[in-house]
Amino acid sequence: MATSANTPNTLLLKNPSIFKTTSNSGIHTFPIPRATVKPFSIKCSSSATAVAPPTTTQDRLFNFAAGPATLPESVLRKAESELYNWRGAGMSVMEMSHRGKEFLSIIQKAESDLRKLLNISDDYAVLFLQGGATTQFASVPLNICKPEDPVDYIVTGSWGDKAYKEATKYCKPKVIWSGKSEKYTGIPSFDDLEQNPDARYLHICANETIHGVEFKDYPTPKNKDALLIADMSSNFCSKPVDVSKFGIIYAGAQKNVGPSGVTIVIVRKDLLGNAQEITPVMLDYKIHADNNSLYNTPPCYGIYMCGLVFEDLLAQGGLVEVEKNNMKKAQILYDAIDGSNGFYRSPVEKSVRSLMNVPFTLEKSELEGEFVKEAAKEGMVQLKGHRSVGGMRASIYNAMPLAGVEKLVAFMKEFQAKHG
Amino acid sequence: MATSANTPNTLLLKNPSIFKTTSNSGIHTFPIPRATVKPFSIKCSSSATAVAPPTTTQDRLFNFAAGPATLPESVLRKAESELYNWRGAGMSVMEMSHRGKEFLSIIQKAESDLRKLLNISDDYAVLFLQGGATTQFASVPLNICKPEDPVDYIVTGSWGDKAYKEATKYCKPKVIWSGKSEKYTGIPSFDDLEQNPDARYLHICANETIHGVEFKDYPTPKNKDALLIADMSSNFCSKPVDVSKFGIIYAGAQKNVGPSGVTIVIVRKDLLGNAQEITPVMLDYKIHADNNSLYNTPPCYGIYMCGLVFEDLLAQGGLVEVEKNNMKKAQILYDAIDGSNGFYRSPVEKSVRSLMNVPFTLEKSELEGEFVKEAAKEGMVQLKGHRSVGGMRASIYNAMPLAGVEKLVAFMKEFQAKHG
Repeated sequence: MATSANTPNTLLLKNPSIFKTTSNSGIHTFPIPRATVKPFSIKCSSSATAVAPPTTTQDRLFNFAAGPATLPESVLRKAESELYNWRGAGMSVMEMSHRGKEFLSIIQKAESDLRKLLNISDDYAVLFLQGGATTQFASVPLNICKPEDPVDYIVTGSWGDKAYKEATKYCKPKVIWSGKSEKYTGIPSFDDLEQNPDARYLHICANETIHGVEFKDYPTPKNKDALLIADMSSNFCSKPVDVSKFGIIYAGAQKNVGPSGVTIVIVRKDLLGNAQEITPVMLDYKIHADNNSLYNTPPCYGIYMCGLVFEDLLAQGGLVEVEKNNMKKAQILYDAIDGSNGFYRSPVEKSVRSLMNVPFTLEKSELEGEFVKEAAKEGMVQLKGHRSVGGMRASIYNAMPLAGVEKLVAFMKEFQAKHG
Repeated sequence: MATSANTPNTLLLKNPSIFKTTSNSGIHTFPIPRATVKPFSIKCSSSATAVAPPTTTQDRLFNFAAGPATLPESVLRKAESELYNWRGAGMSVMEMSHRGKEFLSIIQKAESDLRKLLNISDDYAVLFLQGGATTQFASVPLNICKPEDPVDYIVTGSWGDKAYKEATKYCKPKVIWSGKSEKYTGIPSFDDLEQNPDARYLHICANETIHGVEFKDYPTPKNKDALLIADMSSNFCSKPVDVSKFGIIYAGAQKNVGPSGVTIVIVRKDLLGNAQEITPVMLDYKIHADNNSLYNTPPCYGIYMCGLVFEDLLAQGGLVEVEKNNMKKAQILYDAIDGSNGFYRSPVEKSVRSLMNVPFTLEKSELEGEFVKEAAKEGMVQLKGHRSVGGMRASIYNAMPLAGVEKLVAFMKEFQAKHG
């Protein structure tokens, strides 16, 4: 709808009853009156005065959190408009039976849109699960290994290390390369990898959220029957990926595609049905694949939110366009760091710097606290580095607007001019 | 705020920018304009005309789904008003770092309010987890049993049976009583139970969602060191419970206290730290207790919603008042069934009928489809019985208004008059 900055708009509330208490409610008025109406135009006397202005984009902070992270503003507005009564269904998505036609349409659309985004073939099942990537650290070996099976792990950061440690309970994992001695700032050359020819799979963490190290290409398991498995939690749907190279891809949703509480697993169907006997039923991929992620009650609202994000990513032109935006955002931020004559420093090898998580330090480390504090004053929050590594970290996932990165870069230059 | 049914209210939108696209969004206008403003009063010319009326309570269906289920209308309105910008934080709860002060305040308040509601002592840890009760079917034996430990299960319905079957993977469970031959319509006399004196625990499902059978009192394990464990998914926070009688209480949130995707576990602290070696880290209670449910990213938005529900239950006067409302609702529904001269029938023993889930059948079973269809036409949905038992089922959890049950009873009488 067209609106002019000079002409105030109004929303008509025909039914004051929505402000009244409900018979079983202890809350007797809604704290904030709300109208949910379709586009319209009305005239209103300019004598109208509001006690408080409506929420505006200006109220919105630039949130550089590593996850849960910023979501597309348009997706939040849509969720807001549908929260109380989803598309005339007479209830919130949070209240829908997971077996009712309304929710089935939501989860089926979400899966179909995700398949479009990543061009996922019918050879793969797409599962919407719970428990985060940390649950998958156990699910992967439990589903595709026998206890005595050797498997290989490339450890490029804390998450890959956690995945390896969990696997020791269910198979015979080996760390064939670790970046720990270099403080997780690099990725190995694939030719130098000493893969076990008998390994059942090769596991990588495609993007290390804490250390800002990202695989730009993927290694091939030595054994042609071995599987490449990737934790893509923090760069899932940030760029196109050839799913056919992988046996299993898993990701927590709370970085690029939704709120926390949803874990997406993309698993090749021929791998299903071989879970170890000790596998909890909720960790058995076949159970969920056979039931279209509805074996038990799924995290319905989170799946709905992921669906809204998938629609938004498709509307942007798909992951090719999304990647372009992400490269542009990362480029100006890394350029600012590299062009600071050492005032700002990126510890990560240039060739494997993450497009999603940008850790950096200050030459004068005693200023880091002030940097974070001053940035927050200007509406840029969650810039403190992970407690395990210190420094700063700017997470710039899909939903971080270019304007947010531009504002951060401008602030960095001001801060350097003031303290350089 | 005071509003008159005769005076239309208006919300002033000062800033049209909220309708504009964001720089990284492919959606160029918000489908529905929104205003989020504090209470105010303004005059508006009556020439104002809206294309569509705002959502009203009249648009809302009475949703008798077994879970996910109806939520308090006031809670939904509050969530709606806070979705885009939580209390001026500049972001949605869905975008908050789970380690930031805003979310910490949310999860800590939720735990504290739940402790008030159920009078939970410091001897117990309260955990907000993922994976539903089905995950707990494995977590319980994995956390407190050795593989050779005998444990007892009372099976009063499908859920207790599923819990038993999952436990066979991790210990030596025995069904000491099953209601299956009576189609799960009763609860055993506690005196007649043949408990194993060496059992590590006695497991019950406090309310069987599908069969409508509810424990009104609780058995005591024969062995004084044995633990009473209860799956309270479908009657959690529907009435006061003496938590001190239990070793572990677990419940999926999606019946009485929130959306799906949150599982609440109340576990006695002295039981922590004994998990079997094969326990996935995400199923280890001690890990979550030591990290205040923040070992990994929790289902933040679901926990926020549970917190809003807990506030609402406290505002109603706590669980004593909540139980009174639930008894009243159940009473008028069971009275309608029992007073129908057999037109409607409840299969469940009167003494153990659930206050939450009311299954019933029609003497003329061929009319059941029409009953469900006609009820839906009158705005009462999800009355079809579970696919495994057929008939009808009215789930009347905490948030089902008395008006919803009264409307259902009136409809039942009309339907009987028409077809009796």
